[in-house]
Amino acid sequence: MTVPAPSTVAVESIDLSHHINSTSKARQPSPLKDLLKYMVEPGMCSLAGGLPHPTLFPFQEATINAYPATADLAIDAPTPAASDLLPLSILKYGAKGDDLATTLQYGLSNGHPSLVKFAREFTNELFTPARQDYEILLNNGNTDGWNKIVGLLCEPGDYLLTEEYTFTSAQGVWIPQGIKAAPVKMDEHGMRSDHLRQTLAEWETKMPGVKRPHVMYIVPVGSNPTGSTMPAKRRQEIYNICVEFDVVIVEDDPYTFLQFPRYDLNAPSALVAQTAEQFKTSLVPSFLKYDTQGRVIRMDTFSKTIAPGSRVGYFIANPLFTERLLRGTEVETQAPSGWSQIILSKLLWNWGIEGFLTWLSNLRDQYQHRRDQMIDAFARLYDLRPASSTSVPGAEGLVAFAKGTETPIFSFVPPTGGMFIWARFYLNNSPRYAIYANEEDPEQAFMTDLWKELAAASVLLVPGAYYSPWQGKDKVTTATRGEEANIGYFRLTYAMNTVRHENEQGLERMSKVLQKVWGL
Amino acid sequence: MTVPAPSTVAVESIDLSHHINSTSKARQPSPLKDLLKYMVEPGMCSLAGGLPHPTLFPFQEATINAYPATADLAIDAPTPAASDLLPLSILKYGAKGDDLATTLQYGLSNGHPSLVKFAREFTNELFTPARQDYEILLNNGNTDGWNKIVGLLCEPGDYLLTEEYTFTSAQGVWIPQGIKAAPVKMDEHGMRSDHLRQTLAEWETKMPGVKRPHVMYIVPVGSNPTGSTMPAKRRQEIYNICVEFDVVIVEDDPYTFLQFPRYDLNAPSALVAQTAEQFKTSLVPSFLKYDTQGRVIRMDTFSKTIAPGSRVGYFIANPLFTERLLRGTEVETQAPSGWSQIILSKLLWNWGIEGFLTWLSNLRDQYQHRRDQMIDAFARLYDLRPASSTSVPGAEGLVAFAKGTETPIFSFVPPTGGMFIWARFYLNNSPRYAIYANEEDPEQAFMTDLWKELAAASVLLVPGAYYSPWQGKDKVTTATRGEEANIGYFRLTYAMNTVRHENEQGLERMSKVLQKVWGL
Repeated sequence: MTVPAPSTVAVESIDLSHHINSTSKARQPSPLKDLLKYMVEPGMCSLAGGLPHPTLFPFQEATINAYPATADLAIDAPTPAASDLLPLSILKYGAKGDDLATTLQYGLSNGHPSLVKFAREFTNELFTPARQDYEILLNNGNTDGWNKIVGLLCEPGDYLLTEEYTFTSAQGVWIPQGIKAAPVKMDEHGMRSDHLRQTLAEWETKMPGVKRPHVMYIVPVGSNPTGSTMPAKRRQEIYNICVEFDVVIVEDDPYTFLQFPRYDLNAPSALVAQTAEQFKTSLVPSFLKYDTQGRVIRMDTFSKTIAPGSRVGYFIANPLFTERLLRGTEVETQAPSGWSQIILSKLLWNWGIEGFLTWLSNLRDQYQHRRDQMIDAFARLYDLRPASSTSVPGAEGLVAFAKGTETPIFSFVPPTGGMFIWARFYLNNSPRYAIYANEEDPEQAFMTDLWKELAAASVLLVPGAYYSPWQGKDKVTTATRGEEANIGYFRLTYAMNTVRHENEQGLERMSKVLQKVWGL
Repeated sequence: MTVPAPSTVAVESIDLSHHINSTSKARQPSPLKDLLKYMVEPGMCSLAGGLPHPTLFPFQEATINAYPATADLAIDAPTPAASDLLPLSILKYGAKGDDLATTLQYGLSNGHPSLVKFAREFTNELFTPARQDYEILLNNGNTDGWNKIVGLLCEPGDYLLTEEYTFTSAQGVWIPQGIKAAPVKMDEHGMRSDHLRQTLAEWETKMPGVKRPHVMYIVPVGSNPTGSTMPAKRRQEIYNICVEFDVVIVEDDPYTFLQFPRYDLNAPSALVAQTAEQFKTSLVPSFLKYDTQGRVIRMDTFSKTIAPGSRVGYFIANPLFTERLLRGTEVETQAPSGWSQIILSKLLWNWGIEGFLTWLSNLRDQYQHRRDQMIDAFARLYDLRPASSTSVPGAEGLVAFAKGTETPIFSFVPPTGGMFIWARFYLNNSPRYAIYANEEDPEQAFMTDLWKELAAASVLLVPGAYYSPWQGKDKVTTATRGEEANIGYFRLTYAMNTVRHENEQGLERMSKVLQKVWGL
């Protein structure tokens, strides 16, 4: 008798149905969608679904000229020559293939099969999930995805496990529903496993009578706003704790393909061209890789890799969860745009998985270049020193001292992924901060005025307070949240502007305002 | 002193904020979206929003070849000649206009300004709203729209005013949320105003301690499933009652441009080519025309007029409601697909309002033709007689007797809009029905088996039970709902098939099964 090796055992999800909330449990299959399966039977004459006849759609064909996967994405690179463009002459109506009729018609709520197939093959190739019983379900991007997951798992009054600083728009879903955050401390590797364990282990003692959190919302690569990326070891620790305390992990991972090596102050990292295979192995694993039980819902999106205007992303989850999410999708959004789905599908199959990896690797390089240029600019505008060589309290990564002084203005950990630098400001060093001493929330008052002064000088940052997870009406100030006194944060992005010209101009404006406000 | 004539007084919405539910009231503006307005200030350098740089989008340009507004839509018409197609060469990146960068980027949650502008001008032109303070807000089609309206107005435990038979997928939103229906009787003109008044006036007596319904969901043109269209007089009556009892009217109107003259059994209506102006004046008014108080939320969609795969529709509502809907949109779906929006916008502006009216008029003709062909086929397969000339109980419109017999099988009111025929079956006339006499719900058991027998004969109808609004677990049978005994319904569509061949084949199969089951 041979026992299969562990790696070849088909692992199936455990029963997690107790996580599904009462609304989602009460969803019935849309009976109309139910009829769709009969409609495709050979010879069936359907007088059922109210679908317009495809001859009544006013489009004949469409051609989208797309970049080759190997396109040079440097900002000053010429656009690809016409002869290099891929003509996705995809949508000929009436011709063989007949994509246009499908694109323009009501579609399957789980998504266009060709795009789902690509997503599945890509997921298998990239993330090597621990289980093969996962399903792919398309959504309208991760904003829609997270809203649907809250609709699947959370009840009013629930507490959600979040990172210490977490995405503002994600909070905008749960706060109005009477859901609160249970924030877990972070370090440069993201959510801290020791504090997660402590939060869960002490829950009954500290929050008697309140249901222990059973859902975690996490952005583990290029955390928004902190820019931290969680390494493999930390992931396994977090996953094990979630098994122990029966927590569902929602991995919101839009920046997963924008992972960078560390920034070295003394020897700035040079871009090294990578093969698709090298790129693939450079990525930290997804939580899917550890997910032997099916308690991970991963959200992937094309917003950061192809284009946000697509409004297409997808869930990767166990079949129980995707079935309930599908029931919600049928009556909530029905399906993503047919145009978006077919354009993405044609582009991705044209590139192939290896081509997409090449594209992603080149894209990653551009973001690393942008990160490096922004930190290089900081190095010119401030005296940047490793935090470990200073005595600045709580500083990690690099500290920006006002040029030629011993006054630290802010510190930051050079991001290892994503689009953002999370700058921690030392307010005590600004003489102006004393003015706010009698305010109810001096940190917030000072940072708001500083933000306005920066905006008046034509440079726009995001106030750090936007990322403090809401824990209830009684915890809206730095003091009541028990957070650090005399510290404020801004989030900066290096994603958006024309590198050098615009970013540097903005950083110079910022530097001038800071010098003034810090009395230098 | 001159008093302005009533028609020129700018009418503003009354305060309807008490209709907004607690979740929607608790929504805060997304602070990140709030920053967008600063980002467009001249000279502003934004290091704020995490938007990808447009050079990183892998599309160079797109060309969509669209039909001219005057295209011949007859099913056997040749597709328009290449020289007649409108090349919407819309999306050149880097060129003047630069639509591609906008299309592919994160967009405004209220929609692409050019599409909103078209929708507004079209609304003014077609529906002449009583107030000018309404706003337009795009959504991802009416499925998404209705889900968002339930999220705006309804609380668990609420009762919703609905038509006696109402759209299944709309019910799929409210049932899992613990919301029930208060169905109002219909006749050939749609919801009956006398029964609406009675329902509301008697509410406190009949349902003591239960909140009176404050929201109405209605499909007033080409009702799904009944095909009825509500004339102007009935609308004014319904509106006045809603003012009296403080009800918000949600007008879900996907079929508004598919309105037909009555079907005349003896002189089938011929298609008469209409000018855009004639078409416009042929339409019944929207509830917007009567809405002096701002209590109408209208939902329009491009699903039935352009293509369902667009997944784009829009709300027309008072600014209070659209502001709250926008807050929801920001964290729920963010925005419809950029591809869909730009393609629709370019097509519609290319056609112009008059062109779009021409398109709609031609489209309407196709659906009328399809309706007429289906009823003509009934006339060949059955003895069709005006209900008024028969003694069939409760029959309106036309009664289908088995050919050469005095056995009525079903009756229907020829639809005056939309895509559906709602067929009312007389079960007592089928000898087989007696078998079900001891069932808990004999009507349902018989109709389910009949549906299966039809499907086995390769013709698919929609079971009428799908459209009975759910009124709670205690009211799931015909008897407990207090509905008619010995009656069942099927919904048939004439929209989808190739006219003549497929539809007639299906109707012949249906006729054979009915003959057998009715023992003829």
